[in-house]
Amino acid sequence: MSQWVRYRTGSAGEGFGRLEGDRIEPVRGFPWKQPQPDGAALPLSSVTLLAPCQPGKLIALWNNFYALAAKLGKATPAHPLYLLKPSTSVSGPGDPIRRPRSYTGKIAFEGELGIVIGQRCSDVSAADAERCIFGYTCVNDITAVGVMNESPDFVQWCRSKGYDTFGAIGPLIATELDWRSASVVTTLEGAERQRYALADMIFSPQELVSRISQDMTLLPGDVIACGTSIGVGSIPDGACVAVTIEGIGTLSNTLTAASGAARP
Amino acid sequence: MSQWVRYRTGSAGEGFGRLEGDRIEPVRGFPWKQPQPDGAALPLSSVTLLAPCQPGKLIALWNNFYALAAKLGKATPAHPLYLLKPSTSVSGPGDPIRRPRSYTGKIAFEGELGIVIGQRCSDVSAADAERCIFGYTCVNDITAVGVMNESPDFVQWCRSKGYDTFGAIGPLIATELDWRSASVVTTLEGAERQRYALADMIFSPQELVSRISQDMTLLPGDVIACGTSIGVGSIPDGACVAVTIEGIGTLSNTLTAASGAARP
Repeated sequence: MSQWVRYRTGSAGEGFGRLEGDRIEPVRGFPWKQPQPDGAALPLSSVTLLAPCQPGKLIALWNNFYALAAKLGKATPAHPLYLLKPSTSVSGPGDPIRRPRSYTGKIAFEGELGIVIGQRCSDVSAADAERCIFGYTCVNDITAVGVMNESPDFVQWCRSKGYDTFGAIGPLIATELDWRSASVVTTLEGAERQRYALADMIFSPQELVSRISQDMTLLPGDVIACGTSIGVGSIPDGACVAVTIEGIGTLSNTLTAASGAARP
Repeated sequence: MSQWVRYRTGSAGEGFGRLEGDRIEPVRGFPWKQPQPDGAALPLSSVTLLAPCQPGKLIALWNNFYALAAKLGKATPAHPLYLLKPSTSVSGPGDPIRRPRSYTGKIAFEGELGIVIGQRCSDVSAADAERCIFGYTCVNDITAVGVMNESPDFVQWCRSKGYDTFGAIGPLIATELDWRSASVVTTLEGAERQRYALADMIFSPQELVSRISQDMTLLPGDVIACGTSIGVGSIPDGACVAVTIEGIGTLSNTLTAASGAARP
């Protein structure tokens, strides 16, 4: 297994690198496309970690865990149900979750597993999907809950989940993950709020990639957030949410109050 | 007013250019960012026109015309209602609309006005939105109608409208458009199916850019499809849909049947 980060340094700009213990080995190009070593290793402590990729598509699943479906009384879907979060919603480890200036209501966290696509794929089988997956990361799929059902005619999935910084991913991409034995653990200010087994997924990562690739071409760096399970909750202003998956690490983000007055 | 195209030639690859009559004046860079002349003019007939930009976000409005809202009995929305079509759904003038291999049902056209963003903007006022708009193009917002309501629990806006080629834009970007006096005309195999005045829009282009920029940062090349009005209909396999807006031109695309067997 290897672990890949994207980072910024004061002097050398942004880049990708392979994480080895507490050092980063910089590469040229993309981790999923024949990366070439590029200079001396850097101490992890000397860089700022960024979102580990820059997805053109951030696809977010709804109703993909048996336990949450049972709790909400929802049927098992026949095909993955999803929305798109805009690429401008993507944020990285340690980035603030910024409360929209126009919104004073509840903002919710959802800890999730993210699949990072490694090669262009369209209409692949579940058996072939494995080779299209570069690796896995943690996702916090953030939602302005009050916006979602503001209209009686149209559920605003995209808008309520699409604000800048509402798609937190990171801290790194792990190229292998025994997801069947892994869990997602989400804490709020250090208190555990979610702990669910990824083995409870309705559509596995391989099935998700196969099925969604029948709907649209997936490109390297695209991320599929696999959906959440029981324990979703509200984030008070100033509180830190941490999503941990063993083998990947911990993605931490703090909700910051809006600065300045809302546009009238 | 100027008109901008993106094109491909056999020898010189892809590029942007300014359309002057039946000639294209190539430029370096982007039309919205200080484009510089780049070589001799080309006959329009010698190139293949492409989608006139490559939007990172293709935002599609729902319920943005009074006439259609009245027909469907929907309330006037308090804020623009929209979904995202993936960037991989974008196709250009003359491109085929490809029927998904897994889908045999009805595929619908929606002729629309598209706003092309010219500069990064976040939380802009309606007064300031005008300078963020680079220009306008035609959109055919294509939908696999049977997919949309396949699940009783979740309206599949993104999936039904997100298939590759289902976001047709073009044929060019007109930097100025007197949209208040313009109409969208959609024909199917030459027969008129939609003719509606853009003055009937609920949220004007400037209001759309302002409101949506309060939800998410808009980037150069992003496209906002302003929603459709009365006359939406189904496209038989092999039929050509043409969307015309005076001052922009005509966007034509033909629905092609799927090739090969569907994945079981």
